[in-house]
Amino acid sequence: MLADTLAALTPADHAAGRRMALHLDNLTKPPGSLGRLETLAVTLAAISGEASPRVSPPGMLVFAADHGVAAEGVSAFPQEVTAQMVANFVSGGAAINVFARQVGARLEVIDVGVAATLPGRGVVDEKVRHGTANMVEGDAMRRDEAVSAIEAGIRAAERAIDAGCRCLIVGEMGIANTTASSALLAALSEAPVAGLIGSGTGLPAERLAHKQAIIERALAARAPDRADPLDVLAKLGGLEIAAMTGAYLGGAARRVPLLVDGFIATVAALVACRLGADTRDYLIFGHRSREPGHAHALAALDAQPLLDLELCLGEGTGAALAYPLLEAACRVPAEMATFDAIGIHVAP
Amino acid sequence: MLADTLAALTPADHAAGRRMALHLDNLTKPPGSLGRLETLAVTLAAISGEASPRVSPPGMLVFAADHGVAAEGVSAFPQEVTAQMVANFVSGGAAINVFARQVGARLEVIDVGVAATLPGRGVVDEKVRHGTANMVEGDAMRRDEAVSAIEAGIRAAERAIDAGCRCLIVGEMGIANTTASSALLAALSEAPVAGLIGSGTGLPAERLAHKQAIIERALAARAPDRADPLDVLAKLGGLEIAAMTGAYLGGAARRVPLLVDGFIATVAALVACRLGADTRDYLIFGHRSREPGHAHALAALDAQPLLDLELCLGEGTGAALAYPLLEAACRVPAEMATFDAIGIHVAP
Repeated sequence: MLADTLAALTPADHAAGRRMALHLDNLTKPPGSLGRLETLAVTLAAISGEASPRVSPPGMLVFAADHGVAAEGVSAFPQEVTAQMVANFVSGGAAINVFARQVGARLEVIDVGVAATLPGRGVVDEKVRHGTANMVEGDAMRRDEAVSAIEAGIRAAERAIDAGCRCLIVGEMGIANTTASSALLAALSEAPVAGLIGSGTGLPAERLAHKQAIIERALAARAPDRADPLDVLAKLGGLEIAAMTGAYLGGAARRVPLLVDGFIATVAALVACRLGADTRDYLIFGHRSREPGHAHALAALDAQPLLDLELCLGEGTGAALAYPLLEAACRVPAEMATFDAIGIHVAP
Repeated sequence: MLADTLAALTPADHAAGRRMALHLDNLTKPPGSLGRLETLAVTLAAISGEASPRVSPPGMLVFAADHGVAAEGVSAFPQEVTAQMVANFVSGGAAINVFARQVGARLEVIDVGVAATLPGRGVVDEKVRHGTANMVEGDAMRRDEAVSAIEAGIRAAERAIDAGCRCLIVGEMGIANTTASSALLAALSEAPVAGLIGSGTGLPAERLAHKQAIIERALAARAPDRADPLDVLAKLGGLEIAAMTGAYLGGAARRVPLLVDGFIATVAALVACRLGADTRDYLIFGHRSREPGHAHALAALDAQPLLDLELCLGEGTGAALAYPLLEAACRVPAEMATFDAIGIHVAP
């Protein structure tokens, strides 16, 4: 299934993007005066190949899983919080629920590896295993488990698209997943770990050196093969990051715009692009996170996010807040009058 | 009426803001992880004095007027475009119409000084005069005309609030109004004109020196009294800028959040703050415009805009695009669960 998805990837339709750019210049506004909103309209036209792209309704996919490395004390919160927050998603009280309601999104919560047994209602059960192993002590998961988690992500993307969603927002919950993300980014980019770590959900500054040491020990012990993204993913984790990678691949194969959240999501997107380079054409970056590693992950994808609001929450929240800009970028070419239509003829 | 509005101004309720900050720290997210959205929630609580502030529905006010200085060739577009764009607002084909529909805004277009006679339907007639005089040749308007335009803005703000609007987005249309705005900002700030001008709607770079020279000539000839904002406004214009000033004053007096657009709007907000300093507490800055003078106007108000999308269109478009962030900032404290409620007890 992963192989089929990778085979289905194609570049975006850049000719459709160029046609959109010409259309935008005829609308009743000085050329280029809507700035990055115009760039966004061009990108959305190229993604869909359509003259009037649509992003509504959006589909939000929140993947949850646990990380064995949490046992090393790398997070401000204990592992049980993953399952508690999944329950909060189900009851509608988390930040991502609020933003999903605001934009009329279809929200799906998918368990790909929470360490606890969850009450079934409201959570899609795609559990691959009860959390990853501690990457300091052994591989986070087997290679076939990484593939299974990716495929759970592909299936979730396809479910959302089959249900009518025109855009995907992919989020996560997993205590210690900034540790896994920093490790993945270090392995994939060969950048020093020190510049790729941050306090995540609020790790005190004095424990950052410990977080860095844990990641460095894991990288040395696991020695992932940088040229083999599946090897990197399996050795360092996590299950939800693998599922997000799958959702990006699945969405790109179906030519749907993918609104990327913060640090963890961008690392998952980077893995997706290493597996299938054409995925990059379908990614739109929602926001710049306060987590220091995010700037490096964005740079690795040559990405410029839409928002910079100093968020560092995850769940998909930064991407969800950027969604109305995509909606606006679709409405401009579809709804604005042309200068011709209103009888203005100027050659500025 | 202006005097009554100025007398009604009060500072925001900062105690209500502090109560909001405490509430936000109990919600199911790491403290501060929603970044500037949390700051925004605090600001909105202080503005309204309420624990659950609301900004929906928003009221959009677009003021239109002409500028005598357009005769000096300082704009890429001829003066007739002001009236043509007002017609476009009425028929719903301009960018601001698109964004107003997206966010469910009440949109009102107010003629405070278009040089042409407009068909009445769909435009509120508050015309003070048929455009300003050319500021190079004489005062843009009389002092009492500036007050009349301000009062038209106050009335528009009150109409919107009386109709149920919980937040105001103030925009403009007026060919050559970046010239008037640069002149106003230079007069109010005493900064050199060279750093305060830009290409507006697309003036070619080779005509920028001409635009600068015109503004410098006008400032020398008019010699406005920096300590008297009404004198500055009357001598340099324009009518729509005065009306925007009035809308900010009227909205602030009614304790409603005011979402400020780009360069012209920020200059009008600066004039409002010079007339009544408490106005500043009610201003939220929507976006950073590409127009170079905007950075100076923002600095004069110690303002940090929410968006930076390289727009330079005006009409209120940048503020309208930021509106969903205000909506999100209201929903977070009203809808998110607390850690207590979901049974998570952690001391990170």
